[in-house]
Amino acid sequence: MTSPFVPRHIGPDADEQAQMLKAIGYGSVDDLMEAAIPSSIRFRGELNLPAGASEEETIAELRAIADRNVVATPMIGLGYYKTHTPAVIKRNVLENPAWYTAYTPYQPEISQGRLEALLNFQTMVTDLTGMTTANASMLDEATAVAEAMTLARRASKNKSSVYAVDADTFPQTLSVLRTRAEPLGITIVLVDLDGGELPDDYFGLHLQYPGASGAIRDHAALVEAAHAKGALVTVAADLLALTLLRTPGEIGADIAAGTTQRFGVPLGFGGPHAGYLAVRAGLERSLPGRLVGVSKDADGNQAYRLALQTREQHIRREKATSNICTAQVLLAVMASMYAVYHGPAGLRRIAEHAHDRASHIAGALREAGIEVPAASFFDTVTAVVPGRAAEIVAAAAARGIELRLVDADRVSVSCDETTTAAHVEAVIESFGAGWEGVFPVAGFIGRSTEYLTHPVFNTHHSETSMLRYLRRLSDRDYALDRGMIPLGSCTMKLNATTEMEAVTWPEFANIHPFAPKTQTEGYEHLVAQLEAWLAEITGYDAVSVQPNAGSQGELAGLLAIRGYHRSRGEAHRDVCLIPSSAHGTNAASAVMAGMRVVVVACDADGNVDLADLDAKIEKHRDALSAIMVTYPSTHGVYETGIADLCAKVHEAGGQVYVDGANLNALVGYARPGKFGADVSHLNLHKTFCIPHGGGGPGVGPVAVGAHLADFLPGDPVLQGDHHAVSAAAHGSAGILPISWAYIRMMGPDGLTAATATAVLAANYVAARLREHYPVLYAGEHGLVAHECILDLRPITKATGVSVDDVAKRLIDYGFHAPTMSFPVAGTLMVEPTESEDLAELDRFIAAMIAIKSEIDKVAAGEWPAGDNPLANAPHTASSVTVDEWTHPYSRSVAGFPEGVDRTAKYWPPVRRIDGAYGDRNLVCSCPSPEAFED
Amino acid sequence: MTSPFVPRHIGPDADEQAQMLKAIGYGSVDDLMEAAIPSSIRFRGELNLPAGASEEETIAELRAIADRNVVATPMIGLGYYKTHTPAVIKRNVLENPAWYTAYTPYQPEISQGRLEALLNFQTMVTDLTGMTTANASMLDEATAVAEAMTLARRASKNKSSVYAVDADTFPQTLSVLRTRAEPLGITIVLVDLDGGELPDDYFGLHLQYPGASGAIRDHAALVEAAHAKGALVTVAADLLALTLLRTPGEIGADIAAGTTQRFGVPLGFGGPHAGYLAVRAGLERSLPGRLVGVSKDADGNQAYRLALQTREQHIRREKATSNICTAQVLLAVMASMYAVYHGPAGLRRIAEHAHDRASHIAGALREAGIEVPAASFFDTVTAVVPGRAAEIVAAAAARGIELRLVDADRVSVSCDETTTAAHVEAVIESFGAGWEGVFPVAGFIGRSTEYLTHPVFNTHHSETSMLRYLRRLSDRDYALDRGMIPLGSCTMKLNATTEMEAVTWPEFANIHPFAPKTQTEGYEHLVAQLEAWLAEITGYDAVSVQPNAGSQGELAGLLAIRGYHRSRGEAHRDVCLIPSSAHGTNAASAVMAGMRVVVVACDADGNVDLADLDAKIEKHRDALSAIMVTYPSTHGVYETGIADLCAKVHEAGGQVYVDGANLNALVGYARPGKFGADVSHLNLHKTFCIPHGGGGPGVGPVAVGAHLADFLPGDPVLQGDHHAVSAAAHGSAGILPISWAYIRMMGPDGLTAATATAVLAANYVAARLREHYPVLYAGEHGLVAHECILDLRPITKATGVSVDDVAKRLIDYGFHAPTMSFPVAGTLMVEPTESEDLAELDRFIAAMIAIKSEIDKVAAGEWPAGDNPLANAPHTASSVTVDEWTHPYSRSVAGFPEGVDRTAKYWPPVRRIDGAYGDRNLVCSCPSPEAFED
Repeated sequence: MTSPFVPRHIGPDADEQAQMLKAIGYGSVDDLMEAAIPSSIRFRGELNLPAGASEEETIAELRAIADRNVVATPMIGLGYYKTHTPAVIKRNVLENPAWYTAYTPYQPEISQGRLEALLNFQTMVTDLTGMTTANASMLDEATAVAEAMTLARRASKNKSSVYAVDADTFPQTLSVLRTRAEPLGITIVLVDLDGGELPDDYFGLHLQYPGASGAIRDHAALVEAAHAKGALVTVAADLLALTLLRTPGEIGADIAAGTTQRFGVPLGFGGPHAGYLAVRAGLERSLPGRLVGVSKDADGNQAYRLALQTREQHIRREKATSNICTAQVLLAVMASMYAVYHGPAGLRRIAEHAHDRASHIAGALREAGIEVPAASFFDTVTAVVPGRAAEIVAAAAARGIELRLVDADRVSVSCDETTTAAHVEAVIESFGAGWEGVFPVAGFIGRSTEYLTHPVFNTHHSETSMLRYLRRLSDRDYALDRGMIPLGSCTMKLNATTEMEAVTWPEFANIHPFAPKTQTEGYEHLVAQLEAWLAEITGYDAVSVQPNAGSQGELAGLLAIRGYHRSRGEAHRDVCLIPSSAHGTNAASAVMAGMRVVVVACDADGNVDLADLDAKIEKHRDALSAIMVTYPSTHGVYETGIADLCAKVHEAGGQVYVDGANLNALVGYARPGKFGADVSHLNLHKTFCIPHGGGGPGVGPVAVGAHLADFLPGDPVLQGDHHAVSAAAHGSAGILPISWAYIRMMGPDGLTAATATAVLAANYVAARLREHYPVLYAGEHGLVAHECILDLRPITKATGVSVDDVAKRLIDYGFHAPTMSFPVAGTLMVEPTESEDLAELDRFIAAMIAIKSEIDKVAAGEWPAGDNPLANAPHTASSVTVDEWTHPYSRSVAGFPEGVDRTAKYWPPVRRIDGAYGDRNLVCSCPSPEAFED
Repeated sequence: MTSPFVPRHIGPDADEQAQMLKAIGYGSVDDLMEAAIPSSIRFRGELNLPAGASEEETIAELRAIADRNVVATPMIGLGYYKTHTPAVIKRNVLENPAWYTAYTPYQPEISQGRLEALLNFQTMVTDLTGMTTANASMLDEATAVAEAMTLARRASKNKSSVYAVDADTFPQTLSVLRTRAEPLGITIVLVDLDGGELPDDYFGLHLQYPGASGAIRDHAALVEAAHAKGALVTVAADLLALTLLRTPGEIGADIAAGTTQRFGVPLGFGGPHAGYLAVRAGLERSLPGRLVGVSKDADGNQAYRLALQTREQHIRREKATSNICTAQVLLAVMASMYAVYHGPAGLRRIAEHAHDRASHIAGALREAGIEVPAASFFDTVTAVVPGRAAEIVAAAAARGIELRLVDADRVSVSCDETTTAAHVEAVIESFGAGWEGVFPVAGFIGRSTEYLTHPVFNTHHSETSMLRYLRRLSDRDYALDRGMIPLGSCTMKLNATTEMEAVTWPEFANIHPFAPKTQTEGYEHLVAQLEAWLAEITGYDAVSVQPNAGSQGELAGLLAIRGYHRSRGEAHRDVCLIPSSAHGTNAASAVMAGMRVVVVACDADGNVDLADLDAKIEKHRDALSAIMVTYPSTHGVYETGIADLCAKVHEAGGQVYVDGANLNALVGYARPGKFGADVSHLNLHKTFCIPHGGGGPGVGPVAVGAHLADFLPGDPVLQGDHHAVSAAAHGSAGILPISWAYIRMMGPDGLTAATATAVLAANYVAARLREHYPVLYAGEHGLVAHECILDLRPITKATGVSVDDVAKRLIDYGFHAPTMSFPVAGTLMVEPTESEDLAELDRFIAAMIAIKSEIDKVAAGEWPAGDNPLANAPHTASSVTVDEWTHPYSRSVAGFPEGVDRTAKYWPPVRRIDGAYGDRNLVCSCPSPEAFED
């Protein structure tokens, strides 16, 4: 029996599907899929997954799984701390679809709310670190630090291949650094800062501040020494500690990196949390990742948008120096709001609370004669207890507290805002010490600079004010809760409430990534089950959910291929073939995996040019490592040659990487692991309903055939392992219940129906719009897969109306634009997904047709090219109510075009934004209120 | 130490408070309160309450309390059924401040979203019951049925005092009917429909359909018999059953009443749920409660607003026939959305599911030789098991299932949408029967009419569509999450997220009101603690939280006074003195309690005229039952004569009822129970942070001195008790965690600070606005209490600009209007509360001053009286962007008056609504889509 959830997830009901089928000339969904999908790859069995459960059954099962996790008091530290998520932020950001269903702010006019929140995030990071420019979040601390390493290498005057790393660095960070360094030929040299020596030569120096042991060291001399070598210095700093400590900026660091988890973001067994990366003046244009900047709109009003996008991997492709793509926007918003809500004084109080508790513990231990070596510490105390460490950790565990077992002789304990006097007592008792007494608060070199002085951090301290600020920001934005977001390749489908429900349960939210296995049985079960289901769906033999974004999944997959070749003595295989139509990230990932990128051409139909492929294989036969292709192609087509392509590459000794970005067009109908591919990464935030969160979290599991299974990412805390791609073993484990629930509720028939409906919807849109806009590329029988490309180039050529104009005009009609100029410049790629019902599809089609008739008026000269509703789009309420109206079209046409509900109009807060202006005048932190008045 | 929650709840921080004090000329909050509150009533101790806890500590304590409730499978029935709340509705209505912080839709232009939802509710009820007009919810089934009884009495041609009641009526309904009947001189006569006889004469007949036993009887002949007597017939019908059964309308009933709980509203140990009341054509103008109707706005567009308000108690006062005031809007919205989401086919499937399960149970029991007397049933099966009932109930309990122990020989079991095959098996096993076999589904006289044919019930069946519908509706409305709602007397302050958190936990949400005590220890503890805290705060000796609205609290309090006099042989005391300034509900409640209302005049300062009081006491000395006064007065003033007033009434043998509507101006500073009052009701949705929910739920506990404690409401399921005012023992128990959490977090100092800050804010607003608008009434030292009245009458006289104009113009400025024309016609009463920070207070003050300058332009003739921004307010986006602008003021003035943020403007969806038009052309269900096109 089909789960009752299936018709909740799939928008068009049976009647609507029948209408849609009629419009494209098919009698049934089965007929359509038979025609659309090449029989050479067609999977004709039923997925071996449990039958779909109802929403209530699924919640009950998740409840049982959650109950197998143990919520204890984690005082393990290592970059993960218990924190109080303010209830107003939890409910109104993390549990609010207006925030969590938003897309990446590539359309800045309808993203001003989250852009402001991210600008607050950047300001928070630069203020606390004392750096000049911060980006709008990294995937976690370990990958942020790895990006800092490669940034240092690019920017350093010292051309050594040695990267000197503080031995007191978090072990998981070290693991990821090693993973990233090796393919790039970077040698990691550990430096013991307590008496050890720096290497002779090095391009960069990494410092952990405070150290993993808790020790605070004066790094100023080291920074000076490194700079004398021409090397750059990265400080991985704890942001909360920086409310009290001298900042990386004050000691002259070049780069600061770290995590913002403890700013109100739940532990989630390791993620998702927002990492941060900030640089001193002069390095801003080398900063990877998303950067929000201030610019102005067509009316000259201040407006925010992503700055310096030309740095990014989707533009630079194989010249990119980072493959980072997704950020952790939802979590960055939460962390920034935590700072907004507490303000500088509140953050300082929280830091002092943690420090006071740690000082109390250190004092009591010392009084009991236990050695606490660090002269200076913030929240973490490491005690030397020869031979007794395991026993003490066990004693604490018996009291419900998890300490860090450093080794047989050392235990460390980390305090945080949730640490109570009772916790302190229990910790001290676990050491066999007495806890009464007054112990002085330990000192350290304090910061001398102010922070978070901007009004936004000093205004919203009551819940009422905070609530309204969150609402005001989210009201500026367009997310899935308002209407369709037909972004090709991005798969903006339903993120069901039931899928989201378990994420904020304490049994999933409050688990430390390094908690003992006895406390994480629920998570281990859920992860194992999800990995098995994903393997079944993709036809592979093994899956790892560790990569916490698609880009990291790509890297992990390519590293698996690399490891495989090396294990067979074929380390020389380093050529990665990539079709010209590929996502830019593919090439960037290949470079990061130490490969050389060779581009394969596409033919006129958008398919991989098999002749060129043959030529490239021939040319690079001996060095061939892999081919990376997306299937269905980034053109949204089921290429018929895919099985053939796989065979050719295998024949030459290469491995086939199928980018799973478009897996949602295959589920139930074709399995890459069975039609010839060796490895894929999946985007759980596309096919498997993790919400986009305004630009992250993403989750990018990697799936491989049996021969590659040994080369999947390993556990990052086992220091011997050089192959972790994320800081936590299971990456963004905290949100995996979402995809688990989706698969559990849909069941094999529901998942298959979702695929077919997505393909039906795309073909319906293509069929209805074809006479107005040419549809670029199609597969057999003239069918597209799950998305279609509308070719605006002839229109642009004839009228000057650009894809930008159409995209912005769609805002006036109440829509988010389709994907612009990807994979083909001058086009729009539309992906309706299975979740949009016929009414919404028709509303979109009607808007596109109406826009076409507006274009016709420009073409006919009725409206001048420079002054028409398209060129001036989007129209704000303010611009449409201006007292003097000078345009050749009416105010109604501007603000209420055909089909717009006058009682429920979404008004963008700003007009079209001038991105270039902002790039020339780079401002990446909150502008002063006076600046707004200009 | 003050809880960290206190500065989250209280808007102005220390600096802001200092600025506010300076503006009103006081050096400290203590000085202000010393001057404001009469020393004769001043409480100078500290409240004996636990010190304020943090949000996290409070959640942990609630968690521990919740864990003392046992979530079993309730199959007890009696009007309460387990139900699946669709996750999308739970998260986006019940957990969404845009819905739960809204006020009653008295300002319809900014309430179109919830008005549409309520119109859906009315349509759902009329469609399912087959009646013509339904109101927008009652407090619960029992009070709905009681209102039906009094409606029948008013409308009946038969002047008998006998009300014939089906003996198979829910026991709690019967209990409330008895409570309500007795003071009004109505005699309840029970009728056994299985062989018993109707009384000779009766004004009305009440039927339960299906009966409490589950039996479905053919009532058509009874209806005919009743009509022949000139009596009216009420059918208390199960809405879910009505998807299958012949409707009350089809059998000719005059009134239908019941509950909508099982439409997705959690059990909550008895409430809150929305009751319903519907009538046949001809009775609509006699219907009590809130009624939503369709009308049109100034542009002729369809718009919704409350209809026929002249029927309501706040206008009819002692002539009112009902005191019903608050509805259950939030729960009615949920129930209506449940119908929207499932649609007619879905509801029917759910009903069939319940019926199938019940049929299976009946079949199996009968096969095992157990007697199941009812020939026809829907979801409830009563089995005759001589002497074995307790044992069977215990056997089911051991399987986690609660059955209803009817008596020693009978057990009944109710099925619902959550009943699984496993439940059915366990139930049958509990009876010692075998559960395998196929049993026919029982039949009954089915309905012959269609229902829920309107598009709204046939469109939003995917979660995506539902989510957007909810967002679209809530976006039309203005709630506390947008800005200040300065409604005098209504206390629209923060409803903190942490207070709301526990409400949706299963351990509070999924408890049946008649669950065995062993399963409700958590609730009993929470209720007892809350009642004790409220007693401490008010200075009374005993509290009952049973009344599920302020109006019911009033009735309960007056009934306690009535019972007290009777117990002392003074049944003749039946005069209730009520000042002319009182809430209209007071008089209506007095009438319902069998009292005669005598109005006491107010003097020129708005205070109770003590001379007139003396005269009235003298005149009615022997018959004096009580005086009902509000303190601080409804004028927002601390009357100095209150202690004196209490003494005078006591001296004459009367009791003093202090209406607790304004208790938020007393908490920590004065205690009615200690300054002379005998009884008060409190409005938890005012002082104690239960959200208004768009017009309910309300909670109205009654607090009394020790001498009245024996006369508090009793448990409604003990049939011998004639004094329950609500269907469930603890009324709306499900939301009591909110007020519990508020008190727990604020602690004695926080509660006291809240009071002082509210008084400070009101005086600040009064001081700042006094030069622009006269402030009516003040107490000693020229101070107001927690609210102030702005007198518009001179302005209206001079310029024609009315309170309505100012209220609607405030919408253009981004505010909800203050209370209009209460307690004095032609004025606005402003209550800023303690939760608004100085920035928001100043924004409001600036708007009011700007409006005054607009009024000045009208006065100066710059703008004509009939065409100015005030007369035309509110302005919609549509009206401001009209192509032809004909007004003497600019579009900017219309849409973006001074101080409005152009990037975050709230646009009302409709212009000013013509209420009278709708009352003349009464339409109270969803208009057809074609009607919108007119």
